[in-house]
Amino acid sequence: MKILRFRWQEKDWWGRLSGDRVLPLPGITDSGELPAEGLPLTEVRLLAPTVPTKIVAVGLNYRDHAEELGMALPEEPLIFLKPPSAVVGPEDRILLPPGVGRVDYEAELAVIIGKTARRVSPEKAREYILGYTCFNDVTARDLQKKDGQWTRAKSFDTFAPIGPWIETELDPDRVRVRAYLNGKVVQDSSTENLLFSVSRLVSFVSHIMTLYPGDVIATGTPPGVGPLSPGDVVEIEVEGIGRLVNFVVAG
Amino acid sequence: MKILRFRWQEKDWWGRLSGDRVLPLPGITDSGELPAEGLPLTEVRLLAPTVPTKIVAVGLNYRDHAEELGMALPEEPLIFLKPPSAVVGPEDRILLPPGVGRVDYEAELAVIIGKTARRVSPEKAREYILGYTCFNDVTARDLQKKDGQWTRAKSFDTFAPIGPWIETELDPDRVRVRAYLNGKVVQDSSTENLLFSVSRLVSFVSHIMTLYPGDVIATGTPPGVGPLSPGDVVEIEVEGIGRLVNFVVAG
Repeated sequence: MKILRFRWQEKDWWGRLSGDRVLPLPGITDSGELPAEGLPLTEVRLLAPTVPTKIVAVGLNYRDHAEELGMALPEEPLIFLKPPSAVVGPEDRILLPPGVGRVDYEAELAVIIGKTARRVSPEKAREYILGYTCFNDVTARDLQKKDGQWTRAKSFDTFAPIGPWIETELDPDRVRVRAYLNGKVVQDSSTENLLFSVSRLVSFVSHIMTLYPGDVIATGTPPGVGPLSPGDVVEIEVEGIGRLVNFVVAG
Repeated sequence: MKILRFRWQEKDWWGRLSGDRVLPLPGITDSGELPAEGLPLTEVRLLAPTVPTKIVAVGLNYRDHAEELGMALPEEPLIFLKPPSAVVGPEDRILLPPGVGRVDYEAELAVIIGKTARRVSPEKAREYILGYTCFNDVTARDLQKKDGQWTRAKSFDTFAPIGPWIETELDPDRVRVRAYLNGKVVQDSSTENLLFSVSRLVSFVSHIMTLYPGDVIATGTPPGVGPLSPGDVVEIEVEGIGRLVNFVVAG
């Protein structure tokens, strides 16, 4: 099932995608309020498909990307946080802040937590996952190097595009992850190349901090990261999910 | 005014402190539900006095602490995030996670945001602040060094004690900040020694990410950080606010 959030008639709703129609989400959306036959996808505005209390991201989780940046491979997952204030949804704008230098796209598979998770084993991790979506870990590369700590570089408003919807049925260990810049493929890898699998990441993070429904774990980016410029269209595609499209503008 | 949150009769409430009594908070607490004459402070359980969407903390913001750690002084504020899941309140327990090595207290003055703040100037920053409280930036020191990135070391559940209440009238630029370990003073400095003042921090962070009401900016810790052990009582005191008391246990 593909779960989505959307704006329609000036209200925000949860729904599910069926073909090219948006249907009520049983148990969440009051179906009396939405047409039972649904709405055409083209008539609603999609929103970020989750409202997280936190976004935990993982650095250097594709072997080739670590080598691309000249960084050592981590022995354990190397985590950082992005603030919920950075979240934007499908077709939203990514704002390039003034004076920060190079800002990069980073295509990622994102895990959406479904149940409160604390100290879960890798074997049980899947039970705590609602589904998966596409994520762009937008990063101000010059600031990342300057600060040493990655937080500022990763935390600007609009630096966490996510969507277009949550796919609940997916094998996260073997899906292709791609970025397109103005229609051209610039990142192209598979989660088969992850150093730490989705199950290991959920387990690892849940041993540090309690994960709540809607929380996001972004699983790292493959090689091919590169800069964004005003006017660019950047798309993140995960096989079996769909494509997250965003427009880049000067902030 | 001292604004607090508390549990009473199995519900959570906002109130204000008057002497040793907790009174309703006009405009927030429905005063018809709480006794108009208030409750004795000793009869309620205090909670963390804010429910933040994010906690932005600042590293190396006291000159002496940076020297103590052998780290270079930053030219700009060096920020990092702690997750809301780490928050605990007054008299709550700090859990030492198994196998992480040394865990330190860090006494800090915390700023509580009162109004949505985006790209505010240092001159206007005070208008966006609701008030101030005490904060303990609990840190797994060995993991901080091992990871390079500070996130894991700072993000364990219970690693963000805050309270006991929000003082709305305070001059944050000249208050004493102290930590006590088992009754003995172990940190003792003044916000006069901050490299970056509260107004500059709020302005700086608001140019990166939008700050929302209840968000926390922790302003950094003075020299004297040291390890916690099971059985310890750790207290953070900020002059003009009060003392935040927490109990350390094996996690």
